[in-house]
Amino acid sequence: MTRSSTIKGDSPVLNPQKLIQEERCKSKINIDQINTFLESSPERRELTHRLIDEVVNDPILKTETSYYDQTKSEERENTARKIARLSLYMEHDIKEVRNRFRDTDLIKELQTDGNGKVSPLSNRDLSIFDKRLSLVANIDPQLGTRVGVHLGLFGNCIKGNGTDEQIRYWLQERGALFIKGIYGCFAMTELGHGSNVAQLQTRAVYNPDGDTFTIDTPDLTATKWWIGGAAHSATHATVYARLIVNNKDYGVKTFVVPLRDPATFQLLPGISIGDIGAKMGRDGIDNGWIQFRNVVIPREFMLSRFTKIIRARDGCVTVSTEPQLDQISGYSALLNGRVNMVMDSFRFGSKFATIATRYAVGRQQFAEKKGKPESQLIDYPLHQFRVLPQLAVAYLVSPASFKLMDVYYVTLEELYRASASTNGSRDENALKLVSKKLKNLFIDSASLKATNTWLVAQLIDELRQSCGGHGYSQYNAFGKGYNDWVVQCTWEGDNSVLSLTSAKSILKKFVDAGTRGKFDVNLDNDSFNYLDPSFLMSVLTGQESTDLDELTDYTRIWAVALVKIMNHVARQIEKTRKIDGVSSLLVMISKFHALHYMLKVYHDKLNSPDSHVTDTKSKESLWNIYKLFSLYFINKHSGEFQQFKIFTPDQISKIIQPQLTQLLPKIREECIPLTDAFQLPDAMLNAPIGYFDGDIYNNYFNEVVKNNPAEPDGAGKPRYHELLTTMLKRGYEFDERLGGAANAAVLARLAK
Amino acid sequence: MTRSSTIKGDSPVLNPQKLIQEERCKSKINIDQINTFLESSPERRELTHRLIDEVVNDPILKTETSYYDQTKSEERENTARKIARLSLYMEHDIKEVRNRFRDTDLIKELQTDGNGKVSPLSNRDLSIFDKRLSLVANIDPQLGTRVGVHLGLFGNCIKGNGTDEQIRYWLQERGALFIKGIYGCFAMTELGHGSNVAQLQTRAVYNPDGDTFTIDTPDLTATKWWIGGAAHSATHATVYARLIVNNKDYGVKTFVVPLRDPATFQLLPGISIGDIGAKMGRDGIDNGWIQFRNVVIPREFMLSRFTKIIRARDGCVTVSTEPQLDQISGYSALLNGRVNMVMDSFRFGSKFATIATRYAVGRQQFAEKKGKPESQLIDYPLHQFRVLPQLAVAYLVSPASFKLMDVYYVTLEELYRASASTNGSRDENALKLVSKKLKNLFIDSASLKATNTWLVAQLIDELRQSCGGHGYSQYNAFGKGYNDWVVQCTWEGDNSVLSLTSAKSILKKFVDAGTRGKFDVNLDNDSFNYLDPSFLMSVLTGQESTDLDELTDYTRIWAVALVKIMNHVARQIEKTRKIDGVSSLLVMISKFHALHYMLKVYHDKLNSPDSHVTDTKSKESLWNIYKLFSLYFINKHSGEFQQFKIFTPDQISKIIQPQLTQLLPKIREECIPLTDAFQLPDAMLNAPIGYFDGDIYNNYFNEVVKNNPAEPDGAGKPRYHELLTTMLKRGYEFDERLGGAANAAVLARLAK
Repeated sequence: MTRSSTIKGDSPVLNPQKLIQEERCKSKINIDQINTFLESSPERRELTHRLIDEVVNDPILKTETSYYDQTKSEERENTARKIARLSLYMEHDIKEVRNRFRDTDLIKELQTDGNGKVSPLSNRDLSIFDKRLSLVANIDPQLGTRVGVHLGLFGNCIKGNGTDEQIRYWLQERGALFIKGIYGCFAMTELGHGSNVAQLQTRAVYNPDGDTFTIDTPDLTATKWWIGGAAHSATHATVYARLIVNNKDYGVKTFVVPLRDPATFQLLPGISIGDIGAKMGRDGIDNGWIQFRNVVIPREFMLSRFTKIIRARDGCVTVSTEPQLDQISGYSALLNGRVNMVMDSFRFGSKFATIATRYAVGRQQFAEKKGKPESQLIDYPLHQFRVLPQLAVAYLVSPASFKLMDVYYVTLEELYRASASTNGSRDENALKLVSKKLKNLFIDSASLKATNTWLVAQLIDELRQSCGGHGYSQYNAFGKGYNDWVVQCTWEGDNSVLSLTSAKSILKKFVDAGTRGKFDVNLDNDSFNYLDPSFLMSVLTGQESTDLDELTDYTRIWAVALVKIMNHVARQIEKTRKIDGVSSLLVMISKFHALHYMLKVYHDKLNSPDSHVTDTKSKESLWNIYKLFSLYFINKHSGEFQQFKIFTPDQISKIIQPQLTQLLPKIREECIPLTDAFQLPDAMLNAPIGYFDGDIYNNYFNEVVKNNPAEPDGAGKPRYHELLTTMLKRGYEFDERLGGAANAAVLARLAK
Repeated sequence: MTRSSTIKGDSPVLNPQKLIQEERCKSKINIDQINTFLESSPERRELTHRLIDEVVNDPILKTETSYYDQTKSEERENTARKIARLSLYMEHDIKEVRNRFRDTDLIKELQTDGNGKVSPLSNRDLSIFDKRLSLVANIDPQLGTRVGVHLGLFGNCIKGNGTDEQIRYWLQERGALFIKGIYGCFAMTELGHGSNVAQLQTRAVYNPDGDTFTIDTPDLTATKWWIGGAAHSATHATVYARLIVNNKDYGVKTFVVPLRDPATFQLLPGISIGDIGAKMGRDGIDNGWIQFRNVVIPREFMLSRFTKIIRARDGCVTVSTEPQLDQISGYSALLNGRVNMVMDSFRFGSKFATIATRYAVGRQQFAEKKGKPESQLIDYPLHQFRVLPQLAVAYLVSPASFKLMDVYYVTLEELYRASASTNGSRDENALKLVSKKLKNLFIDSASLKATNTWLVAQLIDELRQSCGGHGYSQYNAFGKGYNDWVVQCTWEGDNSVLSLTSAKSILKKFVDAGTRGKFDVNLDNDSFNYLDPSFLMSVLTGQESTDLDELTDYTRIWAVALVKIMNHVARQIEKTRKIDGVSSLLVMISKFHALHYMLKVYHDKLNSPDSHVTDTKSKESLWNIYKLFSLYFINKHSGEFQQFKIFTPDQISKIIQPQLTQLLPKIREECIPLTDAFQLPDAMLNAPIGYFDGDIYNNYFNEVVKNNPAEPDGAGKPRYHELLTTMLKRGYEFDERLGGAANAAVLARLAK
């Protein structure tokens, strides 16, 4: 029932609440088991729900529909308020991991190493907070990013490039990791350079006399640009700048540069900062620009894990670098973001899939026959085709995102261990191995980031359209959701550039495997199993069947496609000696790699006891989702599947499309429970047409009225009404009272 | 040179200005001739440029980058101010057409019919203002819509459904057509019903005693919703409501209902109005909701061209309707919007194509080899593939949009003439003919509206991404442009619904032509020439070649595709007896119909003297654009082209894709002149990375700085800085000054 209007809330013809409730009554699947599958494990699931519950009930952190009415400056201020709130949770979460709420100022101990009383901070200590932040980032993306730039980019830049002591100092002792003491930003991108990091123009010139660097912006295009946190928040920046020693350019390195006095918040001398202003979305982030004029920092502020300035006793200065590691770790600050964006793809996707599916079930429009009740949107095959594959996207991202996250943490841990010097020397074999693993992780994360951020951008857009006009209201989440989302396709690695880079690496592996039988079972069997030379051979000699009999076939067919397309591409390059000519096929390879990865990980998980799904009907639904995902994208890419002769035109007509058509109504049967299984509370959806109770019209009406109270001059009478009444009453030219002078009498007088 | 910073504006490595200028120097095409082609004729071209010049220099109407920083309430107020300004231009433009600026209050004469001194208002009188409004709608879309709802929807609803006298009274005498006296809104959509107009629930019950109607909102879902102008501006509404006479429901008819007193702007009794609030875009439009409680209007306020209440002398009341015409004209209010949206597709498309192409030429990133200057984005084949087909889209929409507009005006004129009764009777033959023409116009406008609004949504998104991070800044127009644009895919006919409707009509024509040889050369030869039975036969018997030798072939191939797909679809329906199962193919048919229409109209115009292109090089470029458009969409739909055996997989690999690959570098050569040829001034682009001079970085920097002055507390120090400094300085639990009580000493005391 509506609270905002006394008009009858119940319609004789429309009852979305009942329609949605009926779906739940007749459901045969177990949404708790499915939720455990989606949340990766029972423990992780429990934590997810607890954290969501805390966040959506926190008086500062919770997000209501009024969120959509904030101006940019309100968004900026409210986001800062939320960060201050999160900083308290940060301490709380670390204490919880260690179960230390009494008798010790644990944070202070960690900051000072506690004279050995506390063990040093580890990833485990941050496990609860990291998850909290990931969830917060999906409830309020601008908040997630604004604090994520500090913890993720600034923090990881120091972790990836700093010495152990530098890491300890900046992140623990100074308190950055606890969102305390200092606040960081990540000053990489410049006005004139984004993707091409190696060509950044900001300079860091070493001064042997003072043992310092001078940081300098040589010209306007070298202005640091888009720097999140720079406009209003950051006291320090990790600055990417060209290291110049004795007039020699050593390329781009990283430096910690103080920007503001943390006490007074005044800008330091030589620092010019401005606000980047309005963006398409995420206006709560204070992106800024920075120019450096003769800013001097001590030598020790250069992050020196892999690059060092060495001063000999004779005053001679040399630079030592470890180029390969340097490069890997240089980019590792961005890895975290990419991995997180895949997780975001799951959460964002599931949110909009829930809203649109509930709306599709509750909304009726047009009757099949006169006199019959109007049909639910979801019962139109076209609507099923628009909505249900998007639901499948949300499902398929989940296992892949958890897997990628796990691999990321394990690999980074290995890198830190291997690159930490013991008595000045390192374990070169361990380093070699981890650098190979890192390369694979770069490929997987790049192609999954690009593919999934694109998929979810399409998902939001497609699902918004499927909600008709009501999807265009800000209060139903799609508008801001889309605007906040799409930057993920551009930042921290432009999707096209990432796709090209990862595809080139995959192609190189393909050529190595095909021509030299190079394939490392231990390293590559996970995400690159399609490069196994025996599989390559069987595809290229036409031995590989394209039947879709077994469940594995829905994954394998993508492996077949990858091999055939890469074979074509390799020949093209051989013929033309140019790789640029095939670049749109390279983007396709990266996408197919990601789709294959998602299908494989989903398949393997669902097939193992680790799925925690024992209920037969639930498992069947989950396999249907898996098949739908594969078939939907085969159909979407049927151009490539036919062109590269994976399927004939008749197979598309007689196998793929009929299977797809038959699958949709099956999934439709359980579509409400399948979205309920995401278990997203209304407060996280923040979109009244998608709330759990299905009371679409009353919920939506109430939120609109709550956020738009009557005007002070009278309901419906705007403050600026005189602009309109003056217009409606006009007639200035011929009306003498208004000074008119164009009528015949006046003109006659004037002509005299 | 930048005005906002003394830092060096010239970079030693980047010089976009020079790069863009060079393109112009080496160009061999004639942009004036091309602009004439794009603007349809020399006269229309001249008018376009004059009107743009007036609008972008008008102190109230002009739009600068500060536009992107407005809050919702500023947008609302500024839009109202601009409407008041436009109302003056409206009078001026009518006077100009008649060249009557002296001695007569022409508007007042028109309002009172001037005792025969002036001829009645015609479409010609509005020709300048309509064009002005169309241009304004592309400079400031929310303004275009807010006034367009009044003139287009409210006005056309009365024109389409009112008697001659009703039209004269509301639109002329009361002044609505002059944006004077009254201001209208179009109250069709309800909370519970959008596309299914026939099921709207608002009631208009006839009261025989008082000879009045009572307008009533029976329940919440019948609340009028999304009504543009309702929240703040409209004094009157055309309300779609069920006509109930003697308890009998005659279906949905239209009524003029007063909402506000035009003098005091207070809501009238029984009218409840609220603001719909924040939207994804176009927040300058005051969309509102309306509930009617026992609102009484005279019988004469029902629009009665085709439906009349007839009171016999004995008091007996009957209803007379002309069902077919009633329905046609009921929807005709929406026709104008659809036709305009195709024109908008051209203007919006050309705007973003200009911005992104200039950026692609001026922006450099990554060098081919070390030491070489970085390459321009446009020289990457992938970038050409992303940008240039979008440029072709903008070109191809143009001739189609002018053609559709012309057909619309001619057909509507015919309808008014044929449906005007002379001595109580109508020319039934003329009515029959015009109703057939109207049906074709419905098909063409529906499929062109749906296809082009979708194409341009993709165009904006794709081109924004091609501009990387700078595309995400509001000041570069893409964000607001996209948000404003995408509602065009939903309103005034949801794209999916429109596509299905038009495809079903096309399919019916196909079946009629195929089985009964039904084909009307006079009516159908223009946009349905592919239904000519002899052509059908030659396609279906495999006689039609698929070579791309002649220029016509690039259009004809789409005709072949249409026939083959429809043949498949017709067979499917025959087999399954269900049309719903093929609905995604129906959407495809509508799209292909639109693409075919665009290619055909472009081809025919360019091939005729009417193109005004005499220069050979220019013509060659225009033909290349034409080929690119066709090839790009064949490649995009290569799945369908292979599945329905228009092309074999090898033809895609060996003909289509190589032709496409060879064409792109040719078009790249003239891409700057080809965008200059749109002749859009900077003030209309309103996006500094796309300004004519190509000084991308300085222009962009200046606009950002201008719109984001330093904070009052000191540059870079936000008003809310204490939220942050308090956070950074915290340590509340163990610090006794802050009331901490968790340290050992205090705990010991507390335990005592």
